[in-house]
Amino acid sequence: METVLESPTKSIVIGPDRPFVIIGERINPTGRKALAAELQEGNFDRVRADATAQVDAGAAMLDVNSGVPGADEAKLLVEMVEMVQEIVDVPISLDSSVAEALEAALPVCQGKPLVNSVTGEEERLEQLLPLVKERGAAVIGLAIDEEGPSMDPTVRFEIAKKIVDRAADHGIPPEDVIIDPVVMTVGADQQAALVTLETIRRVRRELGNNLTMGASNVSFGLPGRPVLTASFLALAMGAGLTSAIANPLSAESRLTVQACDLLLGRDPHGMTWIKAHRK
Amino acid sequence: METVLESPTKSIVIGPDRPFVIIGERINPTGRKALAAELQEGNFDRVRADATAQVDAGAAMLDVNSGVPGADEAKLLVEMVEMVQEIVDVPISLDSSVAEALEAALPVCQGKPLVNSVTGEEERLEQLLPLVKERGAAVIGLAIDEEGPSMDPTVRFEIAKKIVDRAADHGIPPEDVIIDPVVMTVGADQQAALVTLETIRRVRRELGNNLTMGASNVSFGLPGRPVLTASFLALAMGAGLTSAIANPLSAESRLTVQACDLLLGRDPHGMTWIKAHRK
Repeated sequence: METVLESPTKSIVIGPDRPFVIIGERINPTGRKALAAELQEGNFDRVRADATAQVDAGAAMLDVNSGVPGADEAKLLVEMVEMVQEIVDVPISLDSSVAEALEAALPVCQGKPLVNSVTGEEERLEQLLPLVKERGAAVIGLAIDEEGPSMDPTVRFEIAKKIVDRAADHGIPPEDVIIDPVVMTVGADQQAALVTLETIRRVRRELGNNLTMGASNVSFGLPGRPVLTASFLALAMGAGLTSAIANPLSAESRLTVQACDLLLGRDPHGMTWIKAHRK
Repeated sequence: METVLESPTKSIVIGPDRPFVIIGERINPTGRKALAAELQEGNFDRVRADATAQVDAGAAMLDVNSGVPGADEAKLLVEMVEMVQEIVDVPISLDSSVAEALEAALPVCQGKPLVNSVTGEEERLEQLLPLVKERGAAVIGLAIDEEGPSMDPTVRFEIAKKIVDRAADHGIPPEDVIIDPVVMTVGADQQAALVTLETIRRVRRELGNNLTMGASNVSFGLPGRPVLTASFLALAMGAGLTSAIANPLSAESRLTVQACDLLLGRDPHGMTWIKAHRK
């Protein structure tokens, strides 16, 4: 199953036989006070810098998150997307917990964007899926519902299946539903990574949908985050993950993803790996 | 299934619910001209230095390989083992392609050593398994036979199964047979790593034996070897590998193994990970 996303002039394809797709995670004010403060002042310098740097480092897409507390998210997300599209030519992942912000920003996106995200929650499904269908976008389905995140992979799998089924009811094909198996920190629960990995394996095997995840969540609150996050990316790629919202500016993550592409037979003749080491 | 190896005073356990065991790979003259030259002169300074450094870096066991072209391997392996045992207290993996060298060195090993290795070749099985049984040692079963290395995981699995069965005929229990799924460089064949990973999964699922492998072989001839080898260790751990013959002096390999132990729930409360980052 292959998911196609589009920028004004480029298509990118996410799929199990394709090079892994890094969706740049940096344009997100959550936990970044300086960025949040700048966005509140209408200063987009850092957004521009983050967009360029991430694409230069190998991000095939960019996540754009407008989660500034107290902000008019709809207005902000539209502005951020316009800013990003002015300087880079990659597909956008529109990231907001506010449905109205996604609704406002969808028409602004050029090409075919990704909507991040619906969950298994009824209200969000019924609010967002019609918009995704109307716009011809793809959507991330986060394996969480009204009960919050489950530590049972079967529950997460069932939520993923519900989202895929509900999307189909709205006329959205399975290739346009990318499942996020939910990543929580191993600092809080030692089973956290295992639950995510098992959910990935089940989705891959039983649904066949593409998958993405917020990789760095796994190492929250722990030392040695770059290696821990990169190692989790390797484990997740081995389990069947086909893309991640991650930081391409982390050498550990970027090189691990490239290494795993080579090891998993997705870097023909090692061209990408060898080129990366000639620089 | 758990494999116990012993040094004069310590036991180490290899198993799927245990921290991953790194068997230090450095005491091996293959591809190390300086070491080979020193060994031919009876100079063991580098052997001693490598033994100490690897154990300090976290090797739970040491592989000792005497493969110097033209040398009297039986004499050399005995001397190397004696030298190593004088300065470190870890179980030994006796590594030689010459059966007589393994036979000569087995009585010298204190505790319970690992014999590296038998293959599926009839002659080697019948020569070595009686010695392993008599000594009460454990043995590595390399999934290769008279036909050379196969690129078909089913063939490798069948060879592994044959070795386990034949060991049982000689009274060696399955926990004392550690399967090596064979690692070849992805520089020569893009399927190389995938074949190894699939062999690991099948052995783990259908036989349940512990596994080890020569991790760094995967990156032979390629740039960026440390990251490539470390990423392969992560993929292999995710597939079920329980130990590896690897270089603990490589920060990439050592940290990736520790990260995967934490992510796979084998580092209770993250103690090892957190301690490693306090230094």
